[in-house]
Amino acid sequence: MDIQSLNALLRAVSSGKTSVANAAEKLKNLSMEDIEYAHIDHNRSLRKGFPEVIFGEGKTADQIIGIMEKILVQEHVLLVTRVSPNKADKILPHFPEAEFYNDAGMIIWKKDTIPILGKGEILVISAGTSDIPVAKEAYLTAKAMGNEVGYLYDVGVAGIHRLFKHKELISNAAVLVVAAGMEGALPSVVAGLVDKPVIAVPTSIGYGASLGGLAALFAMLNSCSSNVAVVNIDNGFGAGYMASMINRV
Amino acid sequence: MDIQSLNALLRAVSSGKTSVANAAEKLKNLSMEDIEYAHIDHNRSLRKGFPEVIFGEGKTADQIIGIMEKILVQEHVLLVTRVSPNKADKILPHFPEAEFYNDAGMIIWKKDTIPILGKGEILVISAGTSDIPVAKEAYLTAKAMGNEVGYLYDVGVAGIHRLFKHKELISNAAVLVVAAGMEGALPSVVAGLVDKPVIAVPTSIGYGASLGGLAALFAMLNSCSSNVAVVNIDNGFGAGYMASMINRV
Amino acid sequence: MDIQSLNALLRAVSSGKTSVANAAEKLKNLSMEDIEYAHIDHNRSLRKGFPEVIFGEGKTADQIIGIMEKILVQEHVLLVTRVSPNKADKILPHFPEAEFYNDAGMIIWKKDTIPILGKGEILVISAGTSDIPVAKEAYLTAKAMGNEVGYLYDVGVAGIHRLFKHKELISNAAVLVVAAGMEGALPSVVAGLVDKPVIAVPTSIGYGASLGGLAALFAMLNSCSSNVAVVNIDNGFGAGYMASMINRV
Amino acid sequence: MDIQSLNALLRAVSSGKTSVANAAEKLKNLSMEDIEYAHIDHNRSLRKGFPEVIFGEGKTADQIIGIMEKILVQEHVLLVTRVSPNKADKILPHFPEAEFYNDAGMIIWKKDTIPILGKGEILVISAGTSDIPVAKEAYLTAKAMGNEVGYLYDVGVAGIHRLFKHKELISNAAVLVVAAGMEGALPSVVAGLVDKPVIAVPTSIGYGASLGGLAALFAMLNSCSSNVAVVNIDNGFGAGYMASMINRV
Amino acid sequence: MDIQSLNALLRAVSSGKTSVANAAEKLKNLSMEDIEYAHIDHNRSLRKGFPEVIFGEGKTADQIIGIMEKILVQEHVLLVTRVSPNKADKILPHFPEAEFYNDAGMIIWKKDTIPILGKGEILVISAGTSDIPVAKEAYLTAKAMGNEVGYLYDVGVAGIHRLFKHKELISNAAVLVVAAGMEGALPSVVAGLVDKPVIAVPTSIGYGASLGGLAALFAMLNSCSSNVAVVNIDNGFGAGYMASMINRV
Amino acid sequence: MDIQSLNALLRAVSSGKTSVANAAEKLKNLSMEDIEYAHIDHNRSLRKGFPEVIFGEGKTADQIIGIMEKILVQEHVLLVTRVSPNKADKILPHFPEAEFYNDAGMIIWKKDTIPILGKGEILVISAGTSDIPVAKEAYLTAKAMGNEVGYLYDVGVAGIHRLFKHKELISNAAVLVVAAGMEGALPSVVAGLVDKPVIAVPTSIGYGASLGGLAALFAMLNSCSSNVAVVNIDNGFGAGYMASMINRV
Amino acid sequence: MDIQSLNALLRAVSSGKTSVANAAEKLKNLSMEDIEYAHIDHNRSLRKGFPEVIFGEGKTADQIIGIMEKILVQEHVLLVTRVSPNKADKILPHFPEAEFYNDAGMIIWKKDTIPILGKGEILVISAGTSDIPVAKEAYLTAKAMGNEVGYLYDVGVAGIHRLFKHKELISNAAVLVVAAGMEGALPSVVAGLVDKPVIAVPTSIGYGASLGGLAALFAMLNSCSSNVAVVNIDNGFGAGYMASMINRV
Amino acid sequence: MDIQSLNALLRAVSSGKTSVANAAEKLKNLSMEDIEYAHIDHNRSLRKGFPEVIFGEGKTADQIIGIMEKILVQEHVLLVTRVSPNKADKILPHFPEAEFYNDAGMIIWKKDTIPILGKGEILVISAGTSDIPVAKEAYLTAKAMGNEVGYLYDVGVAGIHRLFKHKELISNAAVLVVAAGMEGALPSVVAGLVDKPVIAVPTSIGYGASLGGLAALFAMLNSCSSNVAVVNIDNGFGAGYMASMINRV
Repeated sequence: MDIQSLNALLRAVSSGKTSVANAAEKLKNLSMEDIEYAHIDHNRSLRKGFPEVIFGEGKTADQIIGIMEKILVQEHVLLVTRVSPNKADKILPHFPEAEFYNDAGMIIWKKDTIPILGKGEILVISAGTSDIPVAKEAYLTAKAMGNEVGYLYDVGVAGIHRLFKHKELISNAAVLVVAAGMEGALPSVVAGLVDKPVIAVPTSIGYGASLGGLAALFAMLNSCSSNVAVVNIDNGFGAGYMASMINRV
Repeated sequence: MDIQSLNALLRAVSSGKTSVANAAEKLKNLSMEDIEYAHIDHNRSLRKGFPEVIFGEGKTADQIIGIMEKILVQEHVLLVTRVSPNKADKILPHFPEAEFYNDAGMIIWKKDTIPILGKGEILVISAGTSDIPVAKEAYLTAKAMGNEVGYLYDVGVAGIHRLFKHKELISNAAVLVVAAGMEGALPSVVAGLVDKPVIAVPTSIGYGASLGGLAALFAMLNSCSSNVAVVNIDNGFGAGYMASMINRV
Repeated sequence: MDIQSLNALLRAVSSGKTSVANAAEKLKNLSMEDIEYAHIDHNRSLRKGFPEVIFGEGKTADQIIGIMEKILVQEHVLLVTRVSPNKADKILPHFPEAEFYNDAGMIIWKKDTIPILGKGEILVISAGTSDIPVAKEAYLTAKAMGNEVGYLYDVGVAGIHRLFKHKELISNAAVLVVAAGMEGALPSVVAGLVDKPVIAVPTSIGYGASLGGLAALFAMLNSCSSNVAVVNIDNGFGAGYMASMINRV
Repeated sequence: MDIQSLNALLRAVSSGKTSVANAAEKLKNLSMEDIEYAHIDHNRSLRKGFPEVIFGEGKTADQIIGIMEKILVQEHVLLVTRVSPNKADKILPHFPEAEFYNDAGMIIWKKDTIPILGKGEILVISAGTSDIPVAKEAYLTAKAMGNEVGYLYDVGVAGIHRLFKHKELISNAAVLVVAAGMEGALPSVVAGLVDKPVIAVPTSIGYGASLGGLAALFAMLNSCSSNVAVVNIDNGFGAGYMASMINRV
Repeated sequence: MDIQSLNALLRAVSSGKTSVANAAEKLKNLSMEDIEYAHIDHNRSLRKGFPEVIFGEGKTADQIIGIMEKILVQEHVLLVTRVSPNKADKILPHFPEAEFYNDAGMIIWKKDTIPILGKGEILVISAGTSDIPVAKEAYLTAKAMGNEVGYLYDVGVAGIHRLFKHKELISNAAVLVVAAGMEGALPSVVAGLVDKPVIAVPTSIGYGASLGGLAALFAMLNSCSSNVAVVNIDNGFGAGYMASMINRV
Repeated sequence: MDIQSLNALLRAVSSGKTSVANAAEKLKNLSMEDIEYAHIDHNRSLRKGFPEVIFGEGKTADQIIGIMEKILVQEHVLLVTRVSPNKADKILPHFPEAEFYNDAGMIIWKKDTIPILGKGEILVISAGTSDIPVAKEAYLTAKAMGNEVGYLYDVGVAGIHRLFKHKELISNAAVLVVAAGMEGALPSVVAGLVDKPVIAVPTSIGYGASLGGLAALFAMLNSCSSNVAVVNIDNGFGAGYMASMINRV
Repeated sequence: MDIQSLNALLRAVSSGKTSVANAAEKLKNLSMEDIEYAHIDHNRSLRKGFPEVIFGEGKTADQIIGIMEKILVQEHVLLVTRVSPNKADKILPHFPEAEFYNDAGMIIWKKDTIPILGKGEILVISAGTSDIPVAKEAYLTAKAMGNEVGYLYDVGVAGIHRLFKHKELISNAAVLVVAAGMEGALPSVVAGLVDKPVIAVPTSIGYGASLGGLAALFAMLNSCSSNVAVVNIDNGFGAGYMASMINRV
Repeated sequence: MDIQSLNALLRAVSSGKTSVANAAEKLKNLSMEDIEYAHIDHNRSLRKGFPEVIFGEGKTADQIIGIMEKILVQEHVLLVTRVSPNKADKILPHFPEAEFYNDAGMIIWKKDTIPILGKGEILVISAGTSDIPVAKEAYLTAKAMGNEVGYLYDVGVAGIHRLFKHKELISNAAVLVVAAGMEGALPSVVAGLVDKPVIAVPTSIGYGASLGGLAALFAMLNSCSSNVAVVNIDNGFGAGYMASMINRV
């Protein structure tokens, strides 16, 4: 039941066309539809800068094109994650405003410049060069959600001094995203240097006892720094999204 | 908002005391409270014979007594699971209608005889004598929920002929609950003998590679009989509850 | 030993051609063959509407064709699960009555319309669009076993209001099948809304810490709703089969 | 090297008492000590309202008293987590300003009223009554760190309507902490209702396939809502700390 | 139906008192009871030297006494495994022929000397002194089942020469049982020295990454010697039983 | 040091050419080489009918041909396991006496008829048709090692009566090998019917919670029948080898 | 800040151009850059014979060529690990001094002969022929780092006498690297023979319950010999590197 | 056969009392006993400073006293690990030269001062105060084995600057032992600062997702620094032993 129908019903009660009992009966069943309002609100808040997202893995180029066309009608920003270069080649010609970011496997479509809505800077740090795709996904997501975003490459704990050279950059960030595979130690070290929230993203980089990223995940969950929370393995998008949420609190 | 308030509001609209716009505004926020109705319905259905349950583990005797007193006001049947004999000794004196079933670690309180609501018989089978506490929990739960319930002890797969002696009993059941620890094979074998739904309950009985019941759990999930579904390890209550649900379909 | 041989033996005893001792000896060894009767009964019950099933994965198109030909002689319905489109293209020309359902990867062959044998409606719910193949397998299995079956798409817990819009549909179902990957939370939420049995099917949809469906599986086994039982990861067929069993109790 | 020594050295250079080469040599080795400054800064920021914490588990009452005495000299707030009532009885007499919170197993000592430093309200939600100790730890930590904190009990997904009754409370929070054991579904559902960051805390509540909280942990990491990040099992303190960090961004 | 009843029925047929049709009907349902014969045969073979066994863990002394009394009527040998000294003190006074073996936690009751039924010698080897309880259980079980049994202590792979000193003993055994915890390497090494079947028993001895015996279990399953098969962790009884079975082939 | 060198040294001592001290020194280091003798014995026992084996997986056809050529010089029987049809096509032309068994993925080469060395019959049982490759590997290995071997297909626990029809065959076997995937229940059931050693082989057949055969493996290790021992997942060769060892005890 | 800038600043203080306060302020922030010195030292130590390493897996030939070109300017030795023959074919033509080692999947480039820096001999032992790639990686790494390195093939525990033939070789080594898959028992046995440090490398060789090398890993961590430490599964490079470190202590 | 017997035999050959053939026969069987020599050698090397060790956990005070008395006759140093204060109180009165180290749970007995045999200094570092028992075990073991040993407390990665203050101490060590629980990141960070071998000891300190030390263990095995090797969880003794081995290379 939308707002028009509700008004019509109430007018009918008001004018005596519908009895109170009859209207009460109809309204008793209203509850579920009413939540629609929340849904609409939610959509609206999304349109204020939170992009819609399509998880590209396991979808064909044609399927992605179809979903994109349906969403673009009512959105200003749209992300497609986990897109291979091959798929991107097929998708991009249909959407002139879309751009493909090869290192993150991401397509970003936007109607116009995204206004900055986040309060501070989000800094995305990656431990090794192999973690870059995941970190880049976080970086681009945070950008598309209207944040100033900085980036620090390849500063893993095996050469901890590389990290310290950038202490100012690190201290200035309002929120930090740290992507690391293998032993997953970097988020703990970074979180020990700042008093800001750190979102840790384990990556599946490694072999053998890295258990597809579980070793890094468990290390991060056991961080001895308390300003660390963790998202799923390789979930760069989620980390960027969570950081954006935090940056608007 | 309860049904009285809703009627009052509509009458106010009907009589012109409240404007349509004003009422619409109020009703837009109605949704969450409305779900209350479902809540009330749900309670009512419970009172028709589905007992309330208190998970006794980790609660003191005093806490259990307190919760029981609060619930008994509006219920006809009440189960308390995972009660040690010591706790039972302290609880029972407060509730003359309550009974303690030592082998299942369960207290059952009821106002009067529970009417039979289930359509067929539920049969509870246990593989070994050590699985009896879990099986008994299922048995008593199904009884308390208004079912005819049968029971078959100690018919594990190491002596499969013991099972076959009771084929008629097995064939007559409408729903079966099968509790087994160790290799967890019994539900598959039973399910292969009947064309009725079998609820499998892995128990934590075993040692070493039984992994606290995970070995039995995984075996049951991989049953080559398709009429098997599984509940949590040692969850006799859940199995009896699910069987009761099925027996009323 | 079939019934004819048994009669012959007894007639020989009756007429004095065989001594009692001799016959007793023969009958002592009778037991195993006798179970054949059960076997025949079982087949008969299958023919009443419970279809035979071929697990297609890991079998070649030729192997599937061969098995189908052998079974079709004595069955009225036949399911083949986990069939790729390529295999289906090779199989279908041999069986004019067979149909391929691409989204479920299933071939269904039937001699004639399947009579409705289930008492109520089975409702199949899927959390995300990626869970559809598993949910569809459950849906088609339940259909082929003679049930009225409904279907609800894409109502995961991240947008719980989508679920509530369909509360009536949900309340009317006699049995529910809920397929979900990732965090596997939907069955618990659905089971909290109804007092009917819910069969939960974890799917392998997800990545990283979804552990190929184990995360969803464990979540479902730990459901705080007691009217939930679980089948193996991606086992849509088993869920549909179990739901059918329940719907005939 | 502290700031006095540095000034002395530079004055010596300025006055010609020390040669440039000599001073350069000394300063080359300065780096490690220099980080001391950061350390001091860090301490200062702590004194602004971020409390020191003692993990009480595995420490005797005497050990805790000793550590507390050393810390209290220079701090304004001090938390001790995981304290049993027995230990608390021995500790409290030594510290008149300290209070013991039995349901969270926590001692909080503070010199004076903690000023509110967080921007919005933090809301702590717990799924079941058994999750309260963990949720309470988060609640008290966030309070002690200078936040307005709300609390919502016992709103698990098995009765999802209980949650919806409090939608306004939920929508008004700036940051949410959600503690849940068993299937760990609540954070996903809550996160689907708001566009605020949600910190999920799995608890070890459950049995059998709950795997000591791992089932809840994995469910939360696989949340289909993107505004969820996770801390270690039972880590209520960490969740409250992280939420405070976010609330000051 | 026992053999007397069967004879009676056949005599009734023979004498014309019962019709063929009537008897056929009764015999058609005979199968399940008939398996009783197998049961009886099975018991008889047991009495020939294969002892009955009571798993003592989790049973009270009184329960064990009760079960023992029931079994002793018809058996010649009886084992009770996993008995604590305390329980043994209560049990032994009731059974003068019973003996308690402290290092294996086992009670053995026997009517008279057990005849040797095994063909060769069974050799039980233990890797470390901590593995002795498990190894001793295997040793005593094999003895009680009528075998010549040898024993080799403390010959783990960290000092492999200790093993080689006993090569003759090892070569002479017909079947070997090897118990080892920690890295579980000993069965592989022993099996490489002989061309006899080796039953490997992982023990739960170890700490940390020994995972309660799983590390040893997996090592043994991956043995690069092909004459190794494995029983459950700490299952000394099973290893002794299996070795006895093999020794009679 | 071979036997010639030893004699030479002793003759030198005898003739006084070498001092006692000098010879003692040399002999002190003799130990390791001496074990060579054992090695030779071992080879001899192999040549009496225990075949050499090449694990074909991960080796190219050329590598297998090379190794075969080297071994064939001194052996009478040779097995190659895990060979694909493609590789077999390349290998067979080089060895006229070799045969490829497609369903087991095995090549067997033998100089002449293998004499029967085992005492009784080995019976290989497989639960499902998908377990046949593993069971066939066990069957062919046992044959090649000089045993009478029987075979029983497709008698899984979902239709347990199929197993009972063959009770005589089962009772007559001296050793049994039982291969099963999924829930891995068959070995327990079979072992409950006989008093002979049963070698259980878990197979990787299954999906989802079968965990690549671990579910079956754990079920078998927890067998409530004590005459069961287990080999590695899919290790048909090992099972056949172990059964042969047992059959010669 | 490099050493020139530091001198310039101090000269400015010395000459009065910069005030002490001003310089102190600048130097307070010096710390992070200062660590650069350490970095340079580190590089220098590398140039003394410790090679740079590129992990080749997941990088294209072009990417590897690019990184190699950048590194070669300032290094004397360079390793590329996990290179397929195809990639090697594309890479080698660009670097005349580089060599490809097919069995280890490694490219080694060096300017000139590597001087021997290690004190004793490193001995690399592999259990089976399938472990050779990992063992070879360790061997080549240790060579490239300036060590005398020996090699022992195919001496697994199933034929332990093969190992003993080489006892002298084993006793003479200063450090040992032992690579083994399957049950991972070899390092324990070797470590029991010597009083030298043993670096154990589990390999992913095996199937079924080898769990991709985890079975071997856990066995090695549980070694009952205390002179064993372990590196990641298949990490031949790390083992060779660690052994080199030890050989220079 | 001991060295006296060997000499006697050779003298008999030399004097013609024993024929060459006869002596050859005896010596052919010598091999296994010969390894005794190695054993003796091994013992001797132990007496040069490598202590004997008794694992105290699970042994009674009386058992430990008994074993100690037997060993002390022929050793100069003796360690007993994992001793509770209660047991120590009972053990110490029997051995005046023994000392109990409460924080490490260790008894050390020595005849006289242990000579320094290690070449450089071993540095033991612990991440948190809770890791001290494990680190102390390593420290005392290395001391007892004749090394100069340093110690650094409580320098975990959450406050990485604490570590850097001790850079000189760290750089001067020849071998490092690093004990850490929770996320286990410290060994990686330390190893990145030095070019010396680092032995990493995971501890079981932590809760929830620390999995009893497995999280730290896996993190350490995945260290991105190559100069790290790992021992079992809580195995401080093994780490100290391995470090001593390395320090004598």
